[in-house]
Amino acid sequence: MKPFFVGLLAAGAVSAAAQSLADVNVFLGTERMGHTFPGAVVPFGMVQLSPDTRLVPYALPNGSYNPDVYGYCAGYQYEDRTIYGFSHTHFSGTGHSDLGDFSMLPVKSGQSLLPGDGKDPATGYFETFDKQTETAEPGYYRVQLERSGTLAELSASTHAGFHRYTFPAADSASLLLDLVNGIYGYDGKVLWSSLRVENDTLITGYRHVSGWARDRYIYFAASFNQPIASYRHRKDDQTPYRGFYRRFKEFDNFPEMAGKSVRAEFTFAPNEVPLEVVFAISGVSTAGALANLRAEAKPFDAAKAEAQAQWLSELRKIEGTFLSGDDQTTFYTALYHSLIAPHVFQDVDGQYRGLDGNVHRAEGFTNLTVFSLWDTYRALHPWFNFFQPEHNRNAVLSMLAHGEQSVHQALPVWSHWANENWCMIGYHGVSVLADAAAKGMAGVDWDQALKLAVSSSSWRGYDGLGAYLDKGYVPEDVVGSSVSKTLEYAYDDWCVAELARRQTPYHNFYTGTDHPNIRLNKAYLKRSQAFKNTFDPQIHWARPRLSSGVYKAEFDLLSTHNQGFIEGNAWNYSFYVPHDVPGLIQVMGGEKIFVQRLDSLFTMELPDEAIAHTEDVTRDGILGNYVHGNEPSHHIPYLYNWTQDRSKTQFWVRTICRAMYGPETNGLCGNDDAGQMSAWYLFSALGFYPVTPGSATYELGSPSVKSATIALENGNLLRIETVKQSPKNVYVKEVLWNGQTIPSHSIYHQQLIQGGTLTFVMSSKPH
Amino acid sequence: MKPFFVGLLAAGAVSAAAQSLADVNVFLGTERMGHTFPGAVVPFGMVQLSPDTRLVPYALPNGSYNPDVYGYCAGYQYEDRTIYGFSHTHFSGTGHSDLGDFSMLPVKSGQSLLPGDGKDPATGYFETFDKQTETAEPGYYRVQLERSGTLAELSASTHAGFHRYTFPAADSASLLLDLVNGIYGYDGKVLWSSLRVENDTLITGYRHVSGWARDRYIYFAASFNQPIASYRHRKDDQTPYRGFYRRFKEFDNFPEMAGKSVRAEFTFAPNEVPLEVVFAISGVSTAGALANLRAEAKPFDAAKAEAQAQWLSELRKIEGTFLSGDDQTTFYTALYHSLIAPHVFQDVDGQYRGLDGNVHRAEGFTNLTVFSLWDTYRALHPWFNFFQPEHNRNAVLSMLAHGEQSVHQALPVWSHWANENWCMIGYHGVSVLADAAAKGMAGVDWDQALKLAVSSSSWRGYDGLGAYLDKGYVPEDVVGSSVSKTLEYAYDDWCVAELARRQTPYHNFYTGTDHPNIRLNKAYLKRSQAFKNTFDPQIHWARPRLSSGVYKAEFDLLSTHNQGFIEGNAWNYSFYVPHDVPGLIQVMGGEKIFVQRLDSLFTMELPDEAIAHTEDVTRDGILGNYVHGNEPSHHIPYLYNWTQDRSKTQFWVRTICRAMYGPETNGLCGNDDAGQMSAWYLFSALGFYPVTPGSATYELGSPSVKSATIALENGNLLRIETVKQSPKNVYVKEVLWNGQTIPSHSIYHQQLIQGGTLTFVMSSKPH
Repeated sequence: MKPFFVGLLAAGAVSAAAQSLADVNVFLGTERMGHTFPGAVVPFGMVQLSPDTRLVPYALPNGSYNPDVYGYCAGYQYEDRTIYGFSHTHFSGTGHSDLGDFSMLPVKSGQSLLPGDGKDPATGYFETFDKQTETAEPGYYRVQLERSGTLAELSASTHAGFHRYTFPAADSASLLLDLVNGIYGYDGKVLWSSLRVENDTLITGYRHVSGWARDRYIYFAASFNQPIASYRHRKDDQTPYRGFYRRFKEFDNFPEMAGKSVRAEFTFAPNEVPLEVVFAISGVSTAGALANLRAEAKPFDAAKAEAQAQWLSELRKIEGTFLSGDDQTTFYTALYHSLIAPHVFQDVDGQYRGLDGNVHRAEGFTNLTVFSLWDTYRALHPWFNFFQPEHNRNAVLSMLAHGEQSVHQALPVWSHWANENWCMIGYHGVSVLADAAAKGMAGVDWDQALKLAVSSSSWRGYDGLGAYLDKGYVPEDVVGSSVSKTLEYAYDDWCVAELARRQTPYHNFYTGTDHPNIRLNKAYLKRSQAFKNTFDPQIHWARPRLSSGVYKAEFDLLSTHNQGFIEGNAWNYSFYVPHDVPGLIQVMGGEKIFVQRLDSLFTMELPDEAIAHTEDVTRDGILGNYVHGNEPSHHIPYLYNWTQDRSKTQFWVRTICRAMYGPETNGLCGNDDAGQMSAWYLFSALGFYPVTPGSATYELGSPSVKSATIALENGNLLRIETVKQSPKNVYVKEVLWNGQTIPSHSIYHQQLIQGGTLTFVMSSKPH
Repeated sequence: MKPFFVGLLAAGAVSAAAQSLADVNVFLGTERMGHTFPGAVVPFGMVQLSPDTRLVPYALPNGSYNPDVYGYCAGYQYEDRTIYGFSHTHFSGTGHSDLGDFSMLPVKSGQSLLPGDGKDPATGYFETFDKQTETAEPGYYRVQLERSGTLAELSASTHAGFHRYTFPAADSASLLLDLVNGIYGYDGKVLWSSLRVENDTLITGYRHVSGWARDRYIYFAASFNQPIASYRHRKDDQTPYRGFYRRFKEFDNFPEMAGKSVRAEFTFAPNEVPLEVVFAISGVSTAGALANLRAEAKPFDAAKAEAQAQWLSELRKIEGTFLSGDDQTTFYTALYHSLIAPHVFQDVDGQYRGLDGNVHRAEGFTNLTVFSLWDTYRALHPWFNFFQPEHNRNAVLSMLAHGEQSVHQALPVWSHWANENWCMIGYHGVSVLADAAAKGMAGVDWDQALKLAVSSSSWRGYDGLGAYLDKGYVPEDVVGSSVSKTLEYAYDDWCVAELARRQTPYHNFYTGTDHPNIRLNKAYLKRSQAFKNTFDPQIHWARPRLSSGVYKAEFDLLSTHNQGFIEGNAWNYSFYVPHDVPGLIQVMGGEKIFVQRLDSLFTMELPDEAIAHTEDVTRDGILGNYVHGNEPSHHIPYLYNWTQDRSKTQFWVRTICRAMYGPETNGLCGNDDAGQMSAWYLFSALGFYPVTPGSATYELGSPSVKSATIALENGNLLRIETVKQSPKNVYVKEVLWNGQTIPSHSIYHQQLIQGGTLTFVMSSKPH
């Protein structure tokens, strides 16, 4: 693995009792597949202010998809030496790209307003930098820009980005605001943009863009600490300002700029004082952005201090000791990355843009966005139920609001900024609801939740669901990735059944009737057994079937492409029955073959061709045929818990923690996926994992921490202790809860959140 | 003149005591230059639902401006026999085009979703009709469509269009909603559009368009009286719905349609009952449109009855008797056309989109839009002060809100739908304010009004204003049409002076100081004398000057092009000093030459070349060199009142009423200009006219009515009576107010609105 970022490594002491910002490497995952960003953000902040190191057009000149787009989901790759601007919105770790709004860059005055090619300075304004000058901590990023000689510093609050630019002395300072640039940019991404110079220290504006999100509105209001001396803009589209010609000079010092390709330069007089910008955003209106600006504007140093205090407060909720500084950085950086999405998506007055395009007001909750649910229902939302239950309540209520605003009455699938992207498969919003219900979330209308879970899972037009309801499986000739869909629908249906069960009054013995929810529970329990319909009884593997009922003849257990699966192959997906592992063991042909197959999964030698086709992961993310860089396998190491070979769970969990995670820039073996990869690590490092979201049970694994004290939101303390913990002692001899041996392989959520001590007695040998 | 529309003529009885809808010919002005529309609207309604008879691209195939655009400002020309749809927004009588939103058309199911070329039915869905089947009244329009065999009927409420389509029996019915079509359409007008099928009888959506308005949002919610059986759409742009592919069928029965070129078809099962649609609009949101829909939805017949009751209520406020049925129709159609703009631009809850793009709530007034102020400050807003003072208060408060939302703190110039188009010249918003103040409008913050009048007239970047302030005239080498601008700025400045004067406490005799408004009044009075600086003392004509001070050498008194004037020539504009006619007479060289020139103006033989270059008017709109089809001359016939030859005012006013107005489809000699031409007629037909908006004085002319009783909004009745009125008795022997001879050539607003009888004793000879 590559050398760890030096400045942070030096500060990363083993066994530090109080955490510091140096425990986080914000560059972790910025290399290759992690898709994280190094810029400034506060926990769940709406602004993610970060450098964009390349502009990647969505399409190649021949019109086809540009494969480079994928690497720039967060706008940044660690090896780059160019910066096109600091933009205010970034996904963290996602597998699809978008955002990158409102790109600002300090430049020498009067040069080209085009970004340029990143090579020849004559082509545009792009900046270059020496990697040695780039440093970052949670809530703070800085870099020395070479072409303009400007020191750039960034910080953030919930709704605002904070910029400080120290220009070379005596130069007049210019700041570019490029309304065209964006992530997932392509010709025509900007449907419209507007920029108003309200007065000599205040500008407002917005973009209406069609990127990955079908169409998305983002507004801003930005304040400068120095008056604008003059400004200009260029516009490369042909939209005229019709009443305008012959009357004013449109492109110089005219305060109403608008069009599809507006790039503006603001020039400031030479000043000893660095230029500071507070740049607030809103999904509602420029008035909303202005209110956000008023609420959060402060000097740069104060903003930085506040942002970092917020991060410290989060980090200090877990006081851990570790076997190494690397483990410590890995752990706290995972914690950092788990606290970025879903993030606030409302103005300070509670107003937000809903999925229906209308402006709503969040009553009794904070509206959130960026729901990458196919990823995050697995461990991130369970992590929130454990570590950030109030945040998860906001997530649940935001999802319910989304469902109500949906014309399909469907919970989010992959949604951001008032858009549904329909990305990946299943309707896993129901899992988040069921998990919240299982873990006793208060303040939710569970009747509404159940109603939306039912409507989400009843929309026959959705992705093979009609056929699934008719046949008990998704036929591959109806829609691709059919086995993955059957398996995930089955799990989701179990979640709906659980939701119904948890709010079902008992059978009425006076009238002899069941509550309607009992019937719902039974119906969905039946649906949840559909996984059996996709297992070929001849070979005991999940296998695509056709509408006729026959299994698809051509079938490659190892290939991930066109075999009925997505982000996985038959080996990976056949273990995907998180809600009924005993039933899975049965359809696989019994425990012996189940264990044999698990063993093989982790140890088999995969053909190079199969590796080449594995999506979204680097070579480090593959362990035999087990693919940790993608999500469908995340629960698999824990499945040994249902067998006599529980120690293998312990071994593989520790192996994965060591091999697939690290503290360095390429420390993530696949996309962090909005925090799912990080949440897997956090749970596993603490010794337990939610194999079945929607149940209140955690499976016990093997902790990699030496100890940890977690300050729970309810005020209780949960202490994780280990005995004889060491890199070699990966096996667990015994687990004790408050000193009492736990006879089972699992522990209940309700136990843990009461506070207490969970002790793992470690050993170098399987127990 | 062409034959008057037969159905209405039959009903147009002379001297009807109670007015009927048949007194209005809604087709008046739909031929050639009038630019009115025949569709359904209620007084000041936000919806103007009317057929669009041609789709005129903004640009010709070679990219240059398409001159045909001009003829279709209201989407309709009387001679056309094709209909592309019934759209919900139309300007009335303007000289520039825009709008035409949400075009609907009943069609045979399953045909092309493209509009077609209007000739070959194979090219698209356009309809044809037999002119005999087209009839219309205020609030109601009907036509039999030939291709689909459907009877189409339209009505309107303030926020909604009402459609009733009677399809041929047994055919399944289809309804197109074309989100691409529009007036002033061109490639790329639609920045984005969206369409949601909320349920089987409700659709919502919006367009974000860049047409004449730089960018404009319009939303809708539409309800059907029958369930949608199925629907589909086509989209010709390249914006993908990215999460979507492989998952759903995007183009059939998928309820979230969006893109830059969406055309949708909704199919309904065969039904004996005609299809009814209530189509509500909003400038705020689909939620706003839905609230508007809920507030105003009703069956078609009820909507029609209510719309027509509203019109009757307005028409019956003036009980007139006339010399002919033609006069009666001309008068009541002018009244109808004076009650269309500026129209309501807010939702039922008072929310509206402001010039700053933000959503505001109108508190204490109704927000209005469509301010064609260079036209309407002259007679339309004075007409409102007389006949609709509450409406004018809404206009004034809407203009003040606009000014506050303006980044320039500028009152509207030519604004519509939250956009400023900067069309034509001057800052005549100040005239509307001054006229309202002069006529005692209550409920206005006059300090705010004065503040915005001053800021509007202080913006040096505006259209030569900086040079005007420096030199006392607009130099022609700085900006074109310089003489027109100098003259109009001078008048506007007098309006600001009047505004300041009306709220100026007296000089403080204790301190010896003036109130700041006294200084403002003096400064603006001085500015208002700038008209003298553009009169060449050698020739006594207004004449362009250069920055050096010298008058421009090449100078053609008759040409309207590049001579320093706009929509007029030196002859027309030299009479434009409405605020200081004695001063004008002086700079023109005295009353004798003044009268000679006025006489010549009306009687001279204009060279054909000069006529060909005269803008916006038909041949009928020119009387000698007097051009009634354009506004700069509208006050000129009344200028004889300042001379010994008042009878000539009487003669020419009657001549203009007869020659330039008529009851037929081409009854307007130029653009109605949002009601300005009609308001001129209304005043003149009643015998008085506001030569100097901003003063409380009307000049007396020669009425063309026999009598009229006007029910004023304050409850008083104003009676206009004539003695010996006849087509030949165009001269006024004596005018009496409540039986007392008026010694002057004018009468005060405050007199008239107290109610009483104004009697004109007519004669065939000058007095």
